[in-house]
Amino acid sequence: MSQPEYVQTQFYTFAHPPKELVLKSGVKLGPITLAYETYGKLNAGKSNAILIFHALTGDAHAAGLHKDAKSPGWWDPMVGPGKAFDTDKYFVICANVIGGCKGSTGPSSINPATGKPYGLSFPVITIEDMVESQKHLIDHLGIKKLLCASGGSMGGLMALEWSVRFPDTLQSAILIATNYKHTAQQIALHEVARQAIMADPHWNKGDYYGKSLPAQGMAVSRMIGHITYMSERSMEEKFGRKLQDKEKVGYDFSHDFEVESYLKYRGASFVARFDANSYLYISKALDYFDLSEDADLLTVFKGVKTKFLIVTFTSDWLYPSYQSKDIVRAMKANDVDVSFIEINTNYGHDSFLVEIDGQSKLVKSFLENIRKVEHEN
Amino acid sequence: MSQPEYVQTQFYTFAHPPKELVLKSGVKLGPITLAYETYGKLNAGKSNAILIFHALTGDAHAAGLHKDAKSPGWWDPMVGPGKAFDTDKYFVICANVIGGCKGSTGPSSINPATGKPYGLSFPVITIEDMVESQKHLIDHLGIKKLLCASGGSMGGLMALEWSVRFPDTLQSAILIATNYKHTAQQIALHEVARQAIMADPHWNKGDYYGKSLPAQGMAVSRMIGHITYMSERSMEEKFGRKLQDKEKVGYDFSHDFEVESYLKYRGASFVARFDANSYLYISKALDYFDLSEDADLLTVFKGVKTKFLIVTFTSDWLYPSYQSKDIVRAMKANDVDVSFIEINTNYGHDSFLVEIDGQSKLVKSFLENIRKVEHEN
Repeated sequence: MSQPEYVQTQFYTFAHPPKELVLKSGVKLGPITLAYETYGKLNAGKSNAILIFHALTGDAHAAGLHKDAKSPGWWDPMVGPGKAFDTDKYFVICANVIGGCKGSTGPSSINPATGKPYGLSFPVITIEDMVESQKHLIDHLGIKKLLCASGGSMGGLMALEWSVRFPDTLQSAILIATNYKHTAQQIALHEVARQAIMADPHWNKGDYYGKSLPAQGMAVSRMIGHITYMSERSMEEKFGRKLQDKEKVGYDFSHDFEVESYLKYRGASFVARFDANSYLYISKALDYFDLSEDADLLTVFKGVKTKFLIVTFTSDWLYPSYQSKDIVRAMKANDVDVSFIEINTNYGHDSFLVEIDGQSKLVKSFLENIRKVEHEN
Repeated sequence: MSQPEYVQTQFYTFAHPPKELVLKSGVKLGPITLAYETYGKLNAGKSNAILIFHALTGDAHAAGLHKDAKSPGWWDPMVGPGKAFDTDKYFVICANVIGGCKGSTGPSSINPATGKPYGLSFPVITIEDMVESQKHLIDHLGIKKLLCASGGSMGGLMALEWSVRFPDTLQSAILIATNYKHTAQQIALHEVARQAIMADPHWNKGDYYGKSLPAQGMAVSRMIGHITYMSERSMEEKFGRKLQDKEKVGYDFSHDFEVESYLKYRGASFVARFDANSYLYISKALDYFDLSEDADLLTVFKGVKTKFLIVTFTSDWLYPSYQSKDIVRAMKANDVDVSFIEINTNYGHDSFLVEIDGQSKLVKSFLENIRKVEHEN
């Protein structure tokens, strides 16, 4: 194997009209910059592009190493030479969503009208707005049709939205651990996390840039999230009732159980890597998304020619399999070409990040078939 | 039916030696007062007493109406004339746990050494300490043997502890929606709730009595709790994606979904009815409890003559049925007389409070059989 090349995040600022985006709410937002990365090479026919969408707190750095970085991108085991999304064959693109805080325009960006960060003056954004903005990026890259769009969790939801919004631009889609609208429980879990952030006095109605960050609220919100990303079984196997300090006699409110220390650590590190307002905006966008908002789900997929692979995980209680099965049923009722696989695993919702072998086999053969059909046509 | 008589909470302060309790930690705590209520009449042979234990944020007021109160005790549909715990037949007792805030000695009680509320100077208490203190109450009432001890959630765990701690004092026990040690996930969910409280600046290291209460932290902690007490299905049936204000156009971070408003309401009302420090102490006691701490669970029930009824609920994901099945297996291996029933219901962990019909049938016939055996002996 050759030495790994470092990857670099690129930036695309909407340059030709429209320089701004008319959001679903009717509000105009601009200028808009998207941070994105690409892996592999776009072929001459521009027919080998795969767009990957990240999850709630993800970013454009899906794979490879940044210079001086210790750990690779969030989906590195899935994206690279010979991997599921094989960069020897495919040109893989991943962009940070608008509303985010990893280089794309979001609440922590400078509002050109004031010269200060938007904070809560940033407009409410939707999953549709995120998808719409990335269509501009794909146009900018000169790609007329994507071989595939894929993602887990929120990323899967974006791929699903793309498939009905721009059906002629998408050969196939791989939806992992996702759904088509949030249930009351999913909304409730997000709302508690939001309330935890907003309860922190340092949040200060979103105006904390350059001041003390709402660190404790962020930590609590991340602890909640983390519990929902694991399964009861995986937590038990990883931590059980192990104590952090086995020598300690007696107990008090310090963090005696390993699981408590771990969650505190994850909570504390969250504030360093993510923006509290971005969490509020993106989680709200997820809660509001409903593919069946304007029409029965059974009619939504009418005429869709995209081929789908839908993957769920048995222990994922945050996005349980039955939700994906509802999508599959609606697709099949419309003669959409869809394969559905439920992978047996203990890793809960996090499986899309860590259950690599099972996913890789499915993704590889699915993409190979799509590529063959593409070549035959 | 006759007019309902109002019930009154009574108080028992450890009066004869020991006036204090030696806690599991070795610390001596005293004076100790227990708030308790009784329903029905103790018979001449003192053989019809049933001790009921409440859950984490419950109290001694299990049934009936307090004067001027709008709603009855927390288990009123289960306790009363002709009900599951039939007060025409049985003498039912329920006491607030130590560490609590509903009349029994806890962190909000006045420390006689300082004349101020204990706050965090209150010693760490355990499930064993709670059970031990209620044994004093039963002794005080002159009851040598309980016909039954019962409770749901933490209450079930206390009944279980009583059965192995004072095996000769207990004819039978009914354990509902409980387990014998907390899993990593259960500990984690409690820890997030604790962190939410401690993150509130008004918590002030437990020193908030007579000052501003940690209202926002308490609200967030209750929201988390409430999600875990319901099931995904019951939340969906109750709220789905219904909006609070259907006329409102667009959306923002105010509480648009009904489920969000409901959780906020439950969170806000929690601070008025419960003490933040009591939540910390009692939840920690739950997390530390482990009936298999000193010996394999398979040996713990050796020689136990108590008859058990163990009840779980299919949709209870906080205390899933498999945990009770572990108890049943260990009991059966020791020839303990145990019946296990899993009730099919959507109400989640809250089922022990709301799934009345199914529970009542089981409890009634179980108690009737225990009473018959008692009479025959």
